[in-house]
Amino acid sequence: MTTTTLDGLVEALGDAVLTDADACEAYRHDWAREPGAGTPLAVVRARSAADVQEALRWATAHGVPVVPRGAGTGLSGGSSAVDGGLVVSLEQMRGIEIDVETRVAVVEPGALNIAVKAAAAEHGLWYPPDPSSYEICSIGGNVATNAGGLCCVKYGVTTDYVLGLDVVLADGTLITLGGKRIKDVAGLSLLKLFVGSEGTLGIVTRAVLRLIPAQPPRATLVASFPTVTAAARAVVAVGRTLRPSMLELMDAASINAVEDHKPMGLDRSAGALLIAQSDAPAAAAAEEVAVIEAACRAAGADDVFCTDDPEEGEMFIAARRLAFPAIEARGSLLLEDVGVPVPLLPELVEGVAAIAAELAVEIPVVAHAGDGNTHPIIVFDPADPAGAARAQQAFEQIMTLALGLGGTITGEHGVGRTKKGALPAQLGADVMALSRKIKDALDPQGILNPGAVL
Amino acid sequence: MTTTTLDGLVEALGDAVLTDADACEAYRHDWAREPGAGTPLAVVRARSAADVQEALRWATAHGVPVVPRGAGTGLSGGSSAVDGGLVVSLEQMRGIEIDVETRVAVVEPGALNIAVKAAAAEHGLWYPPDPSSYEICSIGGNVATNAGGLCCVKYGVTTDYVLGLDVVLADGTLITLGGKRIKDVAGLSLLKLFVGSEGTLGIVTRAVLRLIPAQPPRATLVASFPTVTAAARAVVAVGRTLRPSMLELMDAASINAVEDHKPMGLDRSAGALLIAQSDAPAAAAAEEVAVIEAACRAAGADDVFCTDDPEEGEMFIAARRLAFPAIEARGSLLLEDVGVPVPLLPELVEGVAAIAAELAVEIPVVAHAGDGNTHPIIVFDPADPAGAARAQQAFEQIMTLALGLGGTITGEHGVGRTKKGALPAQLGADVMALSRKIKDALDPQGILNPGAVL
Repeated sequence: MTTTTLDGLVEALGDAVLTDADACEAYRHDWAREPGAGTPLAVVRARSAADVQEALRWATAHGVPVVPRGAGTGLSGGSSAVDGGLVVSLEQMRGIEIDVETRVAVVEPGALNIAVKAAAAEHGLWYPPDPSSYEICSIGGNVATNAGGLCCVKYGVTTDYVLGLDVVLADGTLITLGGKRIKDVAGLSLLKLFVGSEGTLGIVTRAVLRLIPAQPPRATLVASFPTVTAAARAVVAVGRTLRPSMLELMDAASINAVEDHKPMGLDRSAGALLIAQSDAPAAAAAEEVAVIEAACRAAGADDVFCTDDPEEGEMFIAARRLAFPAIEARGSLLLEDVGVPVPLLPELVEGVAAIAAELAVEIPVVAHAGDGNTHPIIVFDPADPAGAARAQQAFEQIMTLALGLGGTITGEHGVGRTKKGALPAQLGADVMALSRKIKDALDPQGILNPGAVL
Repeated sequence: MTTTTLDGLVEALGDAVLTDADACEAYRHDWAREPGAGTPLAVVRARSAADVQEALRWATAHGVPVVPRGAGTGLSGGSSAVDGGLVVSLEQMRGIEIDVETRVAVVEPGALNIAVKAAAAEHGLWYPPDPSSYEICSIGGNVATNAGGLCCVKYGVTTDYVLGLDVVLADGTLITLGGKRIKDVAGLSLLKLFVGSEGTLGIVTRAVLRLIPAQPPRATLVASFPTVTAAARAVVAVGRTLRPSMLELMDAASINAVEDHKPMGLDRSAGALLIAQSDAPAAAAAEEVAVIEAACRAAGADDVFCTDDPEEGEMFIAARRLAFPAIEARGSLLLEDVGVPVPLLPELVEGVAAIAAELAVEIPVVAHAGDGNTHPIIVFDPADPAGAARAQQAFEQIMTLALGLGGTITGEHGVGRTKKGALPAQLGADVMALSRKIKDALDPQGILNPGAVL
């Protein structure tokens, strides 16, 4: 492909098109740093839906692959560039409008999650989905992966808040799905099909997001358990009684990784730690925490600390959030996102520990325990090829383990390119074939994010 | 089509196949009593997923249309039989298993909504979606229409609770989507695509439904307003502050229809009535009701009654539920299900009143006000052809009105056959074309519920 073939594109889009080597290099990878990433022909930094339409019309006419990209914080290589393709970056489309009376945010895909939360908060409203990366990830990426987070255990995931989408299809057609209606069952659920499609069916250029009233301050509980099994028993018991607004787990390896990195006062001898919050209104939060405490003690918690001081509670959440940087400081990472039915958490965490021991790889685990969604974080030294190979083996084995427990290879990060190999084992041949039929119907040339997911 | 052509089917399915005229007549209509309903060749009362597979393999081989049917309580003609086709009834597949630890129900499609609620309640758990018909409608139908209900305003609709589905495709292939995982983003969101597809893409033979802990007793508030506008202002104000577990509206015509039918002590002079509930834990429910009361008074409520006695509260809900039978007693009905952004409720209700006046048709309105989803109920005398024609005109005009307000033709009942004509006006040509592409990819012969939705 020569630069001549770009002429029509540059004509249409002007300086939104970057072709210099530095730009092309800068847009090759997302946070997964997936090694198969290619080098794009050009980067289109779209300023509007019309720009996205131009780019896709051009790509369709020339049969050029297109990789959509939000903030580039994806953890599965969903935005790895493709050799000779376009990267269509939505990072400049950051508009946010809050419709206070209708309680929705109308958002461009490049807007950061934190910016939507902030804009809503100005009106006493709240956009719940909260990936750990909420300060740096974009709504477009959240929609593309159907992102989760910490509060999902009570408030659900991204798809539960998407009321409407504008989507540019492979041929450049712009469609509008849904709108400012809370309930709408007119026609097939195309809206929900695009959520989580990881840029393989179209490019989102606008989202209508449901907001809810800001929630009361949270009360917090931290409990340490002798074993992950005991902690999981507490998670099951809590879930039968009430809906905490957060229910996170750290295993012994992740507790110690945090304490090695920065002493936070966590109990290094614990087999597992649960961090729970309640945002029930008024005095009910403290009452819910008391119920959670009783469930933890009944399940064998050694030690339980409760506080209704939001700032004190935030310190423990900070320790939980510190797990990722703390573990990152130990080497290169392969980040898992496997999920299982909640009662099978102990089998999963024990299985991960067995894989870690067998392959001599360090694999701390943090988990959105209330949802059964876990992040085993595989640490390796990239300068040690044998170790890196064992890390990759562990990555595959953990996904196989999760599937054997009736689980999923990805609870919230998406399949992208790093987990693509394991997808057929989860879905089976018939569902893969059905998925391909839908992909082919929407993107007959296969130009949208080729190599991702399917 | 002669009976000979049924031979293979009867051989495969034995006495699950009914061909007598009485049976065929009994399965022609759902509750919409859509006049275009045909007469089926046979009714298959499936006993298992295998029966459904047999029926669809046979239908595919013979090019025979298939109409899936749950409890037959649909309100849009989604289960109207087709001349010369099969009706596949799921009414005998009623199995319910509760997995208490994982907090899910594994349910066959013929199980009634009320039976799932009851089975969950035995374990202190709750299946929230609550269509007004919950005592007689089936889970299969709920999934097919993505049914809503009264508690959606806080707890969401059917799709929010569907974690997994077994679906038999047009050619008889049985696929399993999702499972007992709360979060799962592996591959395209096919699960969500089947929810709300009204039997046009496949037949659901098993659903894995998310359960949540049973909620505390509800506190109730009833407020009367001089106008619908004032009531809608209260709905908007409440929604900015908290999430009631119910927020229903009755207009003057529906209040009076109920009082005519059975005196319930409602205020006949009110312009509109709001019925709100809070199920916040412990004392917080009464506090939330106090906040709702303040919002109602600020919005101009004439009179507000509050109670934290669940039985007393239930009497008002009973009055609300009585609206449908009360109005049904007045004549034949055409039931609307239009929705608009919540702040536009007054425009919608006033527009409906104007249409009623202009066409001289009686159209009381009840609404899931918190969701902006309304049920204008058009009353007519079938013995008066001119009146029936005006009723049909009103039916069309109300959908046009809702679309003009950025709304939907159906918030929870589905498009079926009665609203099919209005769907292109809502979706537009591009989304219709995209929907047909997906339909064609999944059902290339077009045998699944032909004539419905698309």
